[in-house]
Amino acid sequence: MTNTITVGVVGAGRIGKLHVENMLRMDGVSVKTIADPFAERAQEWADKLHIPHLVTDPNEIFSDSEIEVVFICSPTDTHVDLIKRSAAANKHIFCEKPISFSDEETMAAYQAVKEAGVQMQVGFNRRFDQNYARVKNYVETGKIGELHILRITSRDPEPPTLDYVKSSGGIFMDMTIHDFDMARFVAGEVKEVYATGAALVNPDIATVGDIDTALIQLTFESGALGIIDNSRQAVYGYDQRIEAFGSKGSAESANETETRVKFSSNESVSEDQPLHFFLERYNHAYIDEVQQFFTAIQTDSAVPCTFEDGIMAQRIAAAAKESLTTGRPVAVKKIQ
Amino acid sequence: MTNTITVGVVGAGRIGKLHVENMLRMDGVSVKTIADPFAERAQEWADKLHIPHLVTDPNEIFSDSEIEVVFICSPTDTHVDLIKRSAAANKHIFCEKPISFSDEETMAAYQAVKEAGVQMQVGFNRRFDQNYARVKNYVETGKIGELHILRITSRDPEPPTLDYVKSSGGIFMDMTIHDFDMARFVAGEVKEVYATGAALVNPDIATVGDIDTALIQLTFESGALGIIDNSRQAVYGYDQRIEAFGSKGSAESANETETRVKFSSNESVSEDQPLHFFLERYNHAYIDEVQQFFTAIQTDSAVPCTFEDGIMAQRIAAAAKESLTTGRPVAVKKIQ
Amino acid sequence: MTNTITVGVVGAGRIGKLHVENMLRMDGVSVKTIADPFAERAQEWADKLHIPHLVTDPNEIFSDSEIEVVFICSPTDTHVDLIKRSAAANKHIFCEKPISFSDEETMAAYQAVKEAGVQMQVGFNRRFDQNYARVKNYVETGKIGELHILRITSRDPEPPTLDYVKSSGGIFMDMTIHDFDMARFVAGEVKEVYATGAALVNPDIATVGDIDTALIQLTFESGALGIIDNSRQAVYGYDQRIEAFGSKGSAESANETETRVKFSSNESVSEDQPLHFFLERYNHAYIDEVQQFFTAIQTDSAVPCTFEDGIMAQRIAAAAKESLTTGRPVAVKKIQ
Amino acid sequence: MTNTITVGVVGAGRIGKLHVENMLRMDGVSVKTIADPFAERAQEWADKLHIPHLVTDPNEIFSDSEIEVVFICSPTDTHVDLIKRSAAANKHIFCEKPISFSDEETMAAYQAVKEAGVQMQVGFNRRFDQNYARVKNYVETGKIGELHILRITSRDPEPPTLDYVKSSGGIFMDMTIHDFDMARFVAGEVKEVYATGAALVNPDIATVGDIDTALIQLTFESGALGIIDNSRQAVYGYDQRIEAFGSKGSAESANETETRVKFSSNESVSEDQPLHFFLERYNHAYIDEVQQFFTAIQTDSAVPCTFEDGIMAQRIAAAAKESLTTGRPVAVKKIQ
Repeated sequence: MTNTITVGVVGAGRIGKLHVENMLRMDGVSVKTIADPFAERAQEWADKLHIPHLVTDPNEIFSDSEIEVVFICSPTDTHVDLIKRSAAANKHIFCEKPISFSDEETMAAYQAVKEAGVQMQVGFNRRFDQNYARVKNYVETGKIGELHILRITSRDPEPPTLDYVKSSGGIFMDMTIHDFDMARFVAGEVKEVYATGAALVNPDIATVGDIDTALIQLTFESGALGIIDNSRQAVYGYDQRIEAFGSKGSAESANETETRVKFSSNESVSEDQPLHFFLERYNHAYIDEVQQFFTAIQTDSAVPCTFEDGIMAQRIAAAAKESLTTGRPVAVKKIQ
Repeated sequence: MTNTITVGVVGAGRIGKLHVENMLRMDGVSVKTIADPFAERAQEWADKLHIPHLVTDPNEIFSDSEIEVVFICSPTDTHVDLIKRSAAANKHIFCEKPISFSDEETMAAYQAVKEAGVQMQVGFNRRFDQNYARVKNYVETGKIGELHILRITSRDPEPPTLDYVKSSGGIFMDMTIHDFDMARFVAGEVKEVYATGAALVNPDIATVGDIDTALIQLTFESGALGIIDNSRQAVYGYDQRIEAFGSKGSAESANETETRVKFSSNESVSEDQPLHFFLERYNHAYIDEVQQFFTAIQTDSAVPCTFEDGIMAQRIAAAAKESLTTGRPVAVKKIQ
Repeated sequence: MTNTITVGVVGAGRIGKLHVENMLRMDGVSVKTIADPFAERAQEWADKLHIPHLVTDPNEIFSDSEIEVVFICSPTDTHVDLIKRSAAANKHIFCEKPISFSDEETMAAYQAVKEAGVQMQVGFNRRFDQNYARVKNYVETGKIGELHILRITSRDPEPPTLDYVKSSGGIFMDMTIHDFDMARFVAGEVKEVYATGAALVNPDIATVGDIDTALIQLTFESGALGIIDNSRQAVYGYDQRIEAFGSKGSAESANETETRVKFSSNESVSEDQPLHFFLERYNHAYIDEVQQFFTAIQTDSAVPCTFEDGIMAQRIAAAAKESLTTGRPVAVKKIQ
Repeated sequence: MTNTITVGVVGAGRIGKLHVENMLRMDGVSVKTIADPFAERAQEWADKLHIPHLVTDPNEIFSDSEIEVVFICSPTDTHVDLIKRSAAANKHIFCEKPISFSDEETMAAYQAVKEAGVQMQVGFNRRFDQNYARVKNYVETGKIGELHILRITSRDPEPPTLDYVKSSGGIFMDMTIHDFDMARFVAGEVKEVYATGAALVNPDIATVGDIDTALIQLTFESGALGIIDNSRQAVYGYDQRIEAFGSKGSAESANETETRVKFSSNESVSEDQPLHFFLERYNHAYIDEVQQFFTAIQTDSAVPCTFEDGIMAQRIAAAAKESLTTGRPVAVKKIQ
């Protein structure tokens, strides 16, 4: 890399901090300013990392002409506004998923970005995991032939708090959205969705209008069929698997574990549980998505996960929610 | 075993021959008569095995007071008639699946069997495979806690001929019926079904009104969710897997292979493909189902896979077909 | 098979009974007489199986002109005498391993068999296990290139009684002899042996002059290197693995298990332990070795595991014992 | 970490560059000077990384009072001299393996380090691999009971050049030395060694007095037995496995692969080959060994892999070489 890219980050929560720590280890990237309404909570952390500016007002990022790129890592309900302001300030954007809970608002932000001519990448980190990338490669290179069935298993190790659930936009928008993106990444556009689900892990989740266990069927435009199974609680750890089955074969990815050690005793033969959660499992993917984002910015080429990708995942999530409510398959709305 | 049970077999096709060869190796079982309209085709085979009587008319079985048990291994459209005649002759019955393609006819046969007071077992052989039995055991003993998600993958190595497809009753009645039985075996009664599918393997299958690739969602009465994925062609071999996922863990069965040998070269690290098809994979299960059937007859206890099990699998298949046609979830009718 | 072969069996212990039960299920084989000095202990078993003659004197076998084949399943110290008498009576022989503990006596029996012109197979059952056969096939067909290293792991689930150990001929003659045969089966003749070992499982085994844990290095005539590791006690079950590593790759066989089920809980991810012991693991191999023996007899072709194979395994065992005593590598004596 | 540690590095070859790049990403560590006789070859690399001083004379490191720590990454025959000069300059040392090819010279360096009172860590990186560390943990915590057999498989993907072989000190000193250290790490001190080997991969290696395929038996002071198998060429990739087998069970580590993806086709079921070579496989271990070294320096506690560890691995290598030459087991000399 030749010139240093100067970055501003909005949101110093878990994911914001993760991106900052990763960027500090990258060549040609400089994190100048972090904005968070509760900046004082992050002060110690920022000092240790020698972050020059920790502020409460994101305007200090938008008004700083030295800053080329904005990372939006704040709560979902602030994304649209921040995207518009970033675009207005002519800055490239890396925005965490989902863009928003409203298709109308998302499309307004989309217009702003298109008009400003800036780039925006959405944080679908799993695309950058070596296992998913390999499965995608088996599909793309024709090794599995024509895709017939896509199976995605995606289960969290533990359910979120009820407070989190309430503001999450629901399981499809919060959790399955990654799987919807993965489905599109591997199998292309989704035509129709049918979803069932229930609150089997924690019945209280039903009282706030959400579910914690779900099956979502997808019909792809290619004619292939897809199925996603979700649970908010796999007691053995983060369960992240995929299988692409086609006319010439099948590519299937198992879970990642910390070691390859097998222990045999008079009681059992046991192996590692899957890596605990997304921070452990997608450690490298979080780095690679950002690295590829910066490469795209520097070489003025397309980012690997676009605004359109963000919109479509969101629309599939909305269709799944409608299907769950109506008990009917629901068509997915296209862009334009 | 104390007394020898004398058996008559109707149908000397592949599955009929398989059962006969297995029975010849069992203690306390004697195969006296085999009836098949094309008996001459089986003459050489029967001679080699020293079968006393190979006839064309099944009446020679029903009218033989020495014969206690009838195996019905003829085409599906003959099952109901043969069941009724077996029951009328007061003989116990082992009937291959499905019982019939018509719920009305099946229920008529059911009445005849109940009135005669004979036992009838349906040939859902997979229940007797050690892998499925183990998964069922993990569920029954509470080791996986409450069941939340049941996943069944069931794919044949190669599609049947179009002629076979035409008289098969459709994929759900012919192939998925085993999976429907397995779903009930592991997870209990099914409340509702939603099915999608297409002829992706061989488009000609669509021309005779059937599909070759399917996803079937099940909602169990317990509240658990189930998903079955089917294909008529897994080029790598017979793919038969199951996962029972619950509140305390998950039990998952992989495919069986001929050996456990791994070969590592400069090109790849490879292992065995799954055992080719049902005759290889369920070799032992075919023996065990019959052995347990005879034990039930001899000890006058319940057979391990009942007429009711046959009826319910058939009803789920019918519901799946209706769902595929209407694009809606369909409720499964109960017995009575 | 055309004509029935009539068999006499000497020895109605565990392995004798196993062979008899297997032969009863084979076409074209008839077990006429079983001789055992403690015949009365086997009476009930023989009655149930309808064995025509259960006697105490093996002479009733040797003097019976109808009997073509003798199975020698009696204690090792009786083998040489029984082989000579079988040969003198012009009967083909199936003899359990080892032939004897004395090379001189073994060679005398060998002469008798050669002079009589009868066939003799030695009971190295593992050659007929599908896993070992597959590894051998990878070597023979050149897929692993030139063999460089052969690794055999062979561990019993539990140590034998001290009484058994005393009359066993020592671990190399009793247990490792199977591994020596396997080494020759896969890699050809052995030039030199170096062995170390100790009584680590049960120190009492040292008091009767034996060991229970051993490492045996082999140098093959081809130049390849071999290593066998033995233990009398693998608490997790019968551990039977092999790896053939060569210039073009490696073929490696893992243990066999009862099922392919994996159970994941909040404590661990566990799989089946290996099949418990040789009766479970080599179930099929015991049948196949006998079936192939009969085929060789009937077609007058060479048996798949010859007297020479038995002699050579015994000589490697003797060399290993000498190496353990002297602390030096020991050359293996060839036939002639 | 509180104070920054200033580091000088001798040797800008592959391993020197690797350590420098890793150190640049560590907090509290500053690489000030790199010395290499062919410094100009590393100029571009050093510029890109903003290394302040790239020099030809290592004296610029020893005479710099700001430098606290010296990394010795130069050829083996320079190690002893550089260790002595580092010790004389009162600097802590991280030295790559082996320390030297001569026990006498190594012991002289050892005296110098002891007298100076500086710390020295030897670069046995595998101790820091998560798989080996886990197996060690199973042994240490008593989960496998008393260790009976230790098996190490260690095979390189491709043989080194003949030029490299000539100056390598031989396979035991160059390659197996890692396995000797691993054996001690897991199973404690080695009493006796017996080695066999040949040039099976490349006969030319024999012409320069070395071998490329080896089996090395170890007898541990605890009574346990060990076996190492080595090859300079596993065509399928870097093969690095270990098994610790004991009275209560066995802990076994398989190879690491890039992904967990399995591909099933009509030809085979294949998985990833092992990670290619040590840079890929021990990527993290190289970072962790250095991180733990700095932590030890900063907290003035013992380094995790000591000078004594380096001496003992070297002495086992020397014993193995003597055994190979004499065809006899050889006792390992203790320190003092």
